[in-house]
Amino acid sequence: MTEQGPAFETSLRAAIDGKTKPLGALGRIETLAEQLARLQGTLTPRADRVRHIIFAADHGIAEAGVSAYPQAVTREMVKNFLAGGAAANVFARQVGAELAVVDAGMIAPVETDGVMDRRLGAGTANALKGPAMAPETVARAIELGRALGGEGAFDLISLGEMGIGNTSSAALVSSKLTGVAIADLVGRGTGLDDAGLAAKAAVLEQAAARTPARLDAPEALAEYGGYEIAMMAGAMLGAGEARRLVLVDGYIATAAAAAALELAPHLRRAFVFAHRSEEPGHARVCAALGVSPLLDLGLRLGEGTGALLAVPLIRAAAAMLNEMASFESAGVSRAE
Amino acid sequence: MTEQGPAFETSLRAAIDGKTKPLGALGRIETLAEQLARLQGTLTPRADRVRHIIFAADHGIAEAGVSAYPQAVTREMVKNFLAGGAAANVFARQVGAELAVVDAGMIAPVETDGVMDRRLGAGTANALKGPAMAPETVARAIELGRALGGEGAFDLISLGEMGIGNTSSAALVSSKLTGVAIADLVGRGTGLDDAGLAAKAAVLEQAAARTPARLDAPEALAEYGGYEIAMMAGAMLGAGEARRLVLVDGYIATAAAAAALELAPHLRRAFVFAHRSEEPGHARVCAALGVSPLLDLGLRLGEGTGALLAVPLIRAAAAMLNEMASFESAGVSRAE
Repeated sequence: MTEQGPAFETSLRAAIDGKTKPLGALGRIETLAEQLARLQGTLTPRADRVRHIIFAADHGIAEAGVSAYPQAVTREMVKNFLAGGAAANVFARQVGAELAVVDAGMIAPVETDGVMDRRLGAGTANALKGPAMAPETVARAIELGRALGGEGAFDLISLGEMGIGNTSSAALVSSKLTGVAIADLVGRGTGLDDAGLAAKAAVLEQAAARTPARLDAPEALAEYGGYEIAMMAGAMLGAGEARRLVLVDGYIATAAAAAALELAPHLRRAFVFAHRSEEPGHARVCAALGVSPLLDLGLRLGEGTGALLAVPLIRAAAAMLNEMASFESAGVSRAE
Repeated sequence: MTEQGPAFETSLRAAIDGKTKPLGALGRIETLAEQLARLQGTLTPRADRVRHIIFAADHGIAEAGVSAYPQAVTREMVKNFLAGGAAANVFARQVGAELAVVDAGMIAPVETDGVMDRRLGAGTANALKGPAMAPETVARAIELGRALGGEGAFDLISLGEMGIGNTSSAALVSSKLTGVAIADLVGRGTGLDDAGLAAKAAVLEQAAARTPARLDAPEALAEYGGYEIAMMAGAMLGAGEARRLVLVDGYIATAAAAAALELAPHLRRAFVFAHRSEEPGHARVCAALGVSPLLDLGLRLGEGTGALLAVPLIRAAAAMLNEMASFESAGVSRAE
């Protein structure tokens, strides 16, 4: 990705500071406008064409009882996405986002039309007992994801996931990538009670103990990754390489982002962290990555719902650059 | 305002909990959906028709040098609103809000068409030396505002302001209504430097010392109010009485909300606090009111920009109730 030069930076700063508002008074809207302008290499960036991609997969570790929901729900929710009834559908329609649903490796494919078949297997192996997938599968997941993130004509790529058991996978991947202790990353997921939470913590401690404290991104994804997490990491890379803003949802998507940013740190300028998950480990992972999500609405749903809710803020930032008057054009006095 | 009965509450809870998501997993979106449903008395609430009202006025206390900007900017920015070039115009267009600009009492009227004339005077008196306005003017401001908040056919009323010097007025009104010390409510406003901030603090201490530590809402508005703050409080009352959701912006609008809620505490269910201002006193006032704003984006602009940025969240909440599938309709399994 080509960096914009100092002349561009000067023009961008002048454009934003020349708008009819006190310096810096639009806070993170200004930061988002700068990020989008730099990424697209223009002072008149676009943020209208949004694709929301949901990656679905199943997790071998679910057999260890780490979720409040039966594993069949992955498949049932994919059907719900296709029928248009899930929260992600509703929020995608609100912002006019095109929705793509990808089967990255559910236990069984759905018969309904409309799913993009990128199946890497019938669910991962149980990461409590050994690697979730082979290293070659990680490479394949990233390549398939990269193609999805880069295809079509979009300004923003918003990413979500569905996979019963995937807060466990995300916790393990995040722990190995950031060094945050697994105990600090275990949460209730979709709604475990206290006993369920304790059991999940024990399972994840045991799974984490199988490997060294730190792993690199391909290793962490092979040992603990879900297919959807690895493929989402690939989609982030493809989107960033194509100069699209990458809207990272909550806990699971941040694990994928941690992997993507280790593989390609120069793409960080494409990433926007959209929502601070209620899953308590998310704040720890965000701190380790040095990022501060835009929204904090207590969501813990996944499907990319937090990312979709942030789309209007990105559009407001683009519109600020494109439409707001300058002090000169509006005849407004500057600060004394 | 009629409270909904227990049968309605049961139906509402069942409708939200029956949606295809873990219980409570949409966080504040669920809370907003509940609030909107209760306010409108329906399980299928609307949030599409939005009116954004900007109240503009001038402040006698500006002559004490409490702002980084010359007082002429109030008038210049009103012309900018009418020409469509301000941040509030841009954000209002993004959400399809109708924009109304009200002259509540600028130093001089603008000649341009399009301003609603509700002038209460040519700027308030200097609150450093005596009351900003007469008690009858407060009553008149509230009645004019109430009519504006209740007129037309809208689901949401979003409120903003423009008035050089009005963080000073807001600080004084908020201090007298909440009991938070004025020293904790003084901030840089549109961008004072350290010397300017110290001078503003001294002016506000002196102005606050003129009256008892606590005042009721009519007294606080008469002593320290801006015309725009008093009229905005009235608009909040009118909107709440008409069962419209009231979107409260940042620091100045929260001072108006504090006054409105003292006058009509039963209307609290209509209020949504949209954005936590960068003005440091705002968090103190919100804490005193027991409210937690939806967004925290570092804005300190006014004009109702934070309220407008929250509109998509309200619409997402309404769409969640109206469009999301239930476990039964989608054939999705519930938690085990």
